[in-house]
Formats: sequence, structure tokens, C-alpha cells
Amino acid sequence: MIKELIDARYGLPLSGHIPTQDTTTGSEGHLSQPLADNETLRTILQHASARKFEPEAVPEPLMQQLFATAFSAPSKSDLQQVSVIRMIDPSQRNRIVRDNPKIAWTKHAPQFMIWCADNRRIRQICETKKYPFANDHLDSFMNSAVDTGIAMQTFIIAADSVGLRCCPISEVRNSIEYLSKELDLPPHVFPVAGLCVGWPLEEPSISMRLPLDITVHTNQYNDDSLSSKVKSYDLRRESTDQTPTEKQRQPERFGLAEVYGWSEDHARQYSEPLRADFGRYIRKQGFDLS
Amino acid sequence: MIKELIDARYGLPLSGHIPTQDTTTGSEGHLSQPLADNETLRTILQHASARKFEPEAVPEPLMQQLFATAFSAPSKSDLQQVSVIRMIDPSQRNRIVRDNPKIAWTKHAPQFMIWCADNRRIRQICETKKYPFANDHLDSFMNSAVDTGIAMQTFIIAADSVGLRCCPISEVRNSIEYLSKELDLPPHVFPVAGLCVGWPLEEPSISMRLPLDITVHTNQYNDDSLSSKVKSYDLRRESTDQTPTEKQRQPERFGLAEVYGWSEDHARQYSEPLRADFGRYIRKQGFDLS
Repeated sequence: MIKELIDARYGLPLSGHIPTQDTTTGSEGHLSQPLADNETLRTILQHASARKFEPEAVPEPLMQQLFATAFSAPSKSDLQQVSVIRMIDPSQRNRIVRDNPKIAWTKHAPQFMIWCADNRRIRQICETKKYPFANDHLDSFMNSAVDTGIAMQTFIIAADSVGLRCCPISEVRNSIEYLSKELDLPPHVFPVAGLCVGWPLEEPSISMRLPLDITVHTNQYNDDSLSSKVKSYDLRRESTDQTPTEKQRQPERFGLAEVYGWSEDHARQYSEPLRADFGRYIRKQGFDLS
Repeated sequence: MIKELIDARYGLPLSGHIPTQDTTTGSEGHLSQPLADNETLRTILQHASARKFEPEAVPEPLMQQLFATAFSAPSKSDLQQVSVIRMIDPSQRNRIVRDNPKIAWTKHAPQFMIWCADNRRIRQICETKKYPFANDHLDSFMNSAVDTGIAMQTFIIAADSVGLRCCPISEVRNSIEYLSKELDLPPHVFPVAGLCVGWPLEEPSISMRLPLDITVHTNQYNDDSLSSKVKSYDLRRESTDQTPTEKQRQPERFGLAEVYGWSEDHARQYSEPLRADFGRYIRKQGFDLS
């Protein structure tokens, strides 16, 4: 079963990722060995994001337990720079989607929350103790954001393990000033992602991943044959999950592609500026990014 | 068993986190309900970082499988902006710890790798297709870093589930220029964290977490009684895991505290600048952070 899950995730067997000439990692001949198999590995390999949920509520004790589990995640220097704001008030959720219509669908998720990076807590602690806070720079900003992603992903895996499904939503940052005001975020706290949680209405589809010979490097970074590897990946993805013609981005600008795929889709997506105002907001929240 | 794991992680029962006057989340009376229990939740709750490992190698097929599992993690806009560089060459590892002696202990870890944010891939794809890349700003930088944390944490949970232990190491960034050269990192790729992996020599101790009434907020951010909550947390932590006097930071500057704890430790730590040059490095790697 675990082998089938890996094959499905990549659209090719694990052996297909490893360049046959690569003997530096001692990988020859290992493919006959049995794979590890347990519930956690299967849960992770079957991860998928859901946007459609049953109307049933997620019991509050379960939510508390998932939070308690999520915050077991490692944290840079044990600083625990994460705060999550649960949006329980329906009128607040209505206002937020009115301001940011792209996420209107989130209104139907039983649970919705904003995962925030919290670099305020350590500053408050320094202030209380009258010690200077000497780390107002990009490294601090990044550490708090990365810790937030780490805790949120731990929540997602925990939720997946009990049959819930989630959807992380970076689009909450499209309207960050308004969101920030609604959540009453003080300086040095900022939204990293929204998260919907609920019981899935249908089993969501798994998104195929880049092969490991693109993402895993040995000793040095190497993307010499990126183009041809991405081309094969595009074809593998399209062969199991073809992009419908009407989903091609900006056909008026780029035309309709005969072969559309992951790379074409994201190249078109990133040819348009998105959230270019995020830096201004972060500086307004008090961060020095020098 | 799951209840004991949660209690140990927080030093207090789950009911102790929830303010009794808080009825907005409908949390009253739920404590009689049974907790969810499965292998994944237990794996996450028992997470701890290890710095001492058995000399036994981690089998290469298992490593490949853990990478294949880790990259199942969600990724912002499905962009998959993560690259991991495995350091297999012992002479390279020797050079890196020589340049950065604070991480000398990592030499004894069977596996060592650097998790890098990779904002280069999408740029390369845009270039190949001759589409402009219109997202050179802070949001892009952050998304690639957060995705890296998410994938690394997924690797850690997968590794924990088979009995391995890891240690994420942000200190690899203390000597980022040299590391970057050793890994031959091109523009728009940068190290987020190192990761040691191996079979633990001893069961590492679990680090107690801030209570959920500090980290989980309802509708609005609220840290009104942070000071008193942190004080109780400090005492809880110290009562099970007391900081030895010789581990107090900078006694020559701050004196020896009678009651030392998590907050005192990190306030002292952050009173000294750490990695103030990270922003300069990131700009040199080609990022515009405006």
C-alpha cells in the first residue's frame, strides 16, 4: 500500500527518481528492500487540501486537542513565535470575505483560523525585564514566519490523521490591512496563512509532486537539466489530471496552449504581480528588514 | 495514554488552558468526552530533538522514502519552492563545521542536510518561457522560506514515526556566506535550516510548551495577561526541568538569577544581536525585499 501511495504522489516509482549513475549516496540495489509502513507515513502521503466540507461541526474538544498537538512542533530557539486567531464570530467572517471576495468559499468551512507569526511576545518579555531587544532584522522576521508554517503543518497532519481535511490559504494576505484590523493585530504580529478545517464532502484529489531528482541535491545545488525534467513532470501530471481549457490563465495575453501544465500555469501566474504591498505592511507592523 | 502525552507537553491538563469564563467557543462541559487517539497524534506529541546518535547508518532506501513523504506537504500555490542539499561528502562536512564551530557536534550525526528555500525554479521556468517574473518582493521571499519549514517539519514527523530523531539547526545560518559557497547556491536559493537525522542514543527530553491560552486567540489577538501567564509557565517548566546555574546566559552582564526560566533565558539571548547580516546576504542572493 505504501508503495502505491508514493507512486501516486509522484506519478512514477521511487526508483524512477534516482539517477542510475548516482553512486555517491550508496543507493544502488536498495530497491529490493521493503519500505517502511505505518499510519503516520500513510497519513502524510495521502495529504490533500479540501475546499468543500460537510456542514457538521468539528467538536470543540477535538479542536483543542489538535491545537495542543500542533504546538508540539519544534520552534526556532524554543521561542514559540506563533499565534493562531480562531474566527468564531460569523459576522466577522462575513466582513472578511466581503472585503476579500476571492476567499468567499471559506464561509462554508466549519472552522476558519488565521495562523500568525508572533515576534511580539519575545519583545514584550524583553521590555518587561528591561533588557534591550537587539534583533530587529530580517532573520527575526523570517524565523517567526517559518515557525508559523511549521506549527500550521503540524496541525494539518494531526487533523488529517483523524479524518478531517484542511486548506491553507495564503490569499488571506491579499487584503492584509483590513484583516489585520479585524484581528486587532498589534505590532510585530502578522498573518502567514488562513486555514479552513472540516469533514470533507468528497475525497480531495492528491496533487502530484516534482520528482526527487529536482528537489533533493547531493553536496551541491544542481539544476542543470531542470527544463527537461520539468517537461516530463508536466506531462505526467497532465496525463492523470488534465487542466481543462477554460482553466488556462490569461488566454487573452498568452493564447490557448496546446500543452498546458504545471510550469505553464505557474509561469503565467507569476507574470502578474501579487501582493507587492506585503513589504510595506510588514514595515508598518514595526519590522526592520535590513 | 494520549492524555498523559498532552499533560506532559504542557505541564498541565488540557482543561487548564481554557479560561473558565470563555463560553464563546462552546467549550463548557467537553472535558468528559474521550480524546482522539492514534499513532500520528502520539508521534507528534512525543516529538523531541536529538543531538546524540547511534553510529548506525540510516538505510538509503529509508532516506529516499522519507524525502518522498516530506514533499507530500502542501505548498503555496503548489509552487514547491524547496530544495534540500544532502551533505554526503565527509570532507565538506568537516570544512563547514571548521568554519562554524558552534555546530561541530553535527559531525557525529549519520545524516546531515540543508533545507533551502528555492525561489529560483519558478524564475527559471518564467525565463525559459520568456514570460516576465513579476513577483520580486517580500511576499515571494517569505513564501519560499515558509514552504521550506513546512516540508522540513513533514520530514521530521515522518522520521519520528519510524524511530529516527532529528535536530533542526538554524545556526547553519551563522556562517551563511561560506555555507552558501560550499553548497554552490545560485541566486534566489538560500538556507533556512540544517537538519541532523539518526537513531537516537538516548530518548531526548520533551520541551514544555506555552499554554494554549497564550497561543490560541478567539476573534481578536489578546495578550492582556501575558506577563502572569508566562510567569506560571516559567515555574512549570523549571519544576520539571530546572536550568542548572552554569547554564544561565551572560551572568557577567545580568548576574545570577534566583529564579531563572524560559523567559529569562530568551530575554538574555535576544539582548545580543544574532545574524544581523542575514538581510545583506539575502539581498546579495538577488532578492528585492521591498
